[in-house]
Amino acid sequence: MSVTDELLANAERYAESFSKGDLPLPPAKGVAVVACMDARLNPYGVLGLEEGDAHVIRNAGGVITADERRSLAISQRLLGTREIILIHHTDCGMLTFTDDAFKADIQRETGLKPDWSAEAFTDLDEDVRQSIGRVKADPFIPHTDQVRGFVYDVTTGRLREVKP
Amino acid sequence: MSVTDELLANAERYAESFSKGDLPLPPAKGVAVVACMDARLNPYGVLGLEEGDAHVIRNAGGVITADERRSLAISQRLLGTREIILIHHTDCGMLTFTDDAFKADIQRETGLKPDWSAEAFTDLDEDVRQSIGRVKADPFIPHTDQVRGFVYDVTTGRLREVKP
Repeated sequence: MSVTDELLANAERYAESFSKGDLPLPPAKGVAVVACMDARLNPYGVLGLEEGDAHVIRNAGGVITADERRSLAISQRLLGTREIILIHHTDCGMLTFTDDAFKADIQRETGLKPDWSAEAFTDLDEDVRQSIGRVKADPFIPHTDQVRGFVYDVTTGRLREVKP
Repeated sequence: MSVTDELLANAERYAESFSKGDLPLPPAKGVAVVACMDARLNPYGVLGLEEGDAHVIRNAGGVITADERRSLAISQRLLGTREIILIHHTDCGMLTFTDDAFKADIQRETGLKPDWSAEAFTDLDEDVRQSIGRVKADPFIPHTDQVRGFVYDVTTGRLREVKP
């Protein structure tokens, strides 16, 4: 049995006790969260989010690329969110390599160089500020007065705000 | 008080009872999930995921763009995941507009045309298959023999697998 099959058995149990079938499409709290994909960072647990509350956007690093700008534009323009919460975290995998080395490894193995930036970083707080800056500079995200960035500590479970 | 401040109070409570400070960086279950950002779709609840279990990647639609390919390459190459679970869902916002109309609206308002595809779609199952296909066609994601796609029903809480 694959891990996927094991998780599908969990999904059956979730459906059996499901009672939230009438939630509206727009997020109740009007918030979009952009967080790292890291397995230890659970935005539902940390922020106390329930089904229906918030858009949750995630990728390697919790960085802002074209796809997060697309998702945030859709979130605000079509589904009414107004606040943005950015979350990076301690012990992030993105601190363990450089773009150049990672892409060179891939090129050696596959013969092709990736057509994307790996978005590695060396300073957590600085990359949170970089992400806030990219959101605020985007011409297609209409509401950027409430954009705040945080570092989640995977050893203490605590969020720390990064000041601009 | 902003909604963000309200969620930060939840984060304080999460930290006070936190007991998972020694989890390793690589996901315990070796799985990466790519799901829509929709507020009603809670991958932790649906799949029974705990902190430390899986990478969770999310965007508008749960579609595969360059940034998801980047995140999956990092997930597999640097952090050892081997299975991929793709989740779209019923009543998705991406079914309610077209790329051309959305981008024309933005251009009318801002004077600029977005430099990204909005990735809207008209058929859920077909877009899940499109996402599976994009993952399998990517030269930089090494393990694509375990890529399965699902549609989550927001009214019943049930996952349905999309057959290739």
